[in-house]
Amino acid sequence: MTFAATVLTLYPEMFPGPLGVSLAGRALREGRWSCEPVQIRDFATDRHRSVDDTPAGGGAGMVMRADVLAAALDHVADNRPVLAMTPRGRPLAQPRVRELAMGPGAIILCGRFEGIDQRLFEAREIEEVSIGDYILSGGEMAALTLLDACIRLLPGVMGAASSGDDESFETGLLEYPHYTRPQLWEGRTIPEVLRSGDHARIAAWRHAMAASDTRLRRPDLWERHEGARVQSPSGARRHDGNE
Amino acid sequence: MTFAATVLTLYPEMFPGPLGVSLAGRALREGRWSCEPVQIRDFATDRHRSVDDTPAGGGAGMVMRADVLAAALDHVADNRPVLAMTPRGRPLAQPRVRELAMGPGAIILCGRFEGIDQRLFEAREIEEVSIGDYILSGGEMAALTLLDACIRLLPGVMGAASSGDDESFETGLLEYPHYTRPQLWEGRTIPEVLRSGDHARIAAWRHAMAASDTRLRRPDLWERHEGARVQSPSGARRHDGNE
Repeated sequence: MTFAATVLTLYPEMFPGPLGVSLAGRALREGRWSCEPVQIRDFATDRHRSVDDTPAGGGAGMVMRADVLAAALDHVADNRPVLAMTPRGRPLAQPRVRELAMGPGAIILCGRFEGIDQRLFEAREIEEVSIGDYILSGGEMAALTLLDACIRLLPGVMGAASSGDDESFETGLLEYPHYTRPQLWEGRTIPEVLRSGDHARIAAWRHAMAASDTRLRRPDLWERHEGARVQSPSGARRHDGNE
Repeated sequence: MTFAATVLTLYPEMFPGPLGVSLAGRALREGRWSCEPVQIRDFATDRHRSVDDTPAGGGAGMVMRADVLAAALDHVADNRPVLAMTPRGRPLAQPRVRELAMGPGAIILCGRFEGIDQRLFEAREIEEVSIGDYILSGGEMAALTLLDACIRLLPGVMGAASSGDDESFETGLLEYPHYTRPQLWEGRTIPEVLRSGDHARIAAWRHAMAASDTRLRRPDLWERHEGARVQSPSGARRHDGNE
């Protein structure tokens, strides 16, 4: 099954862009996902092909028109979830990425300018998604980021090179620190435990490091992790992966 | 002054990529920022040009070597901050974006595979940055995202089209909802207050909407905002912008 991405944008030439390279690029050529950029401007109805207008109530910038965006969305709508990349959205996190990657794909709406007429979100079923607490020049880079996160989870994309199971956020913790050769570099050695060959000791050390790094670097994640452990002592917090 | 971005990567062909288009692309052609991708593999020392090796202690995937990355970093190092895009990093937020945009640029290290030998972070001054709680196929998309956020803040890039001052996160709140023509769409009208012409009423409505949407959608942001208000009753929470 192909993960089908349709991206509504004013800059279709940005897609697949960096996703045409490396892991995602190979997966695209292998047909594991598809990428259909759709030019929003093609759904404008006036002779100037306008997609935006000045904000009601005044203020700087331009606002994307609900009627034009709805026409574009209605044209491509099917059973796939519709996401709009916007700083007002729900923060993206790995569990949602994993759900999306197990589904049929996504229709992704990329905003530009000051934002999108709010009535669009009332009139259509759209999931507003934010990739982080910073402002981008538009939704395009956020869409590329979301797709990158999904594509690496598609069956056959990462292969045996990485199970992904230990990685940051998959366990609710940051990942433990990594080391590799050379054994000695600039007077610094790889921690002794990792050279011990004692798999149980290594696993215990890695878990302890993941926990202490999370507590130190991301107290917010740590609190959520501890809260979830209390609520679900069976430890069944993970989504079932398809790997 | 030009904001100089140097990106250490195994995929230099990804840069400037989508940043060569639209707002960021025009700013690049106008010399407001520069983009120098550097191939990490050029700093490998063995005849296979290897940049990675198996993880000490076992496990899936490969780890990027500290010696090769340090050689690449040392080659390009100057007065600019060095950032590594990694899920173990500090979550990126708008105040840090604004600081970076006011500086000389950035040297950005893009990890791939399972991660980077931890000794690199002990031996060099590197700021680990995460753009969100999800896993990407590598640091490249995170670097593009970070740069997009910085570039739009550079002097002359956004122009008068948008001051950026009202936007999400700039005030510690999400932005208020936007509306534009048509006045009536699918039976839905623009809120009456926005058509009143009463600027004080409009400003009060927008502030109330920003507050209630933040409280509802992002209780985490709301708590931080309220906490900061209590600590700093003067309201002087904003970074000085350069716009």
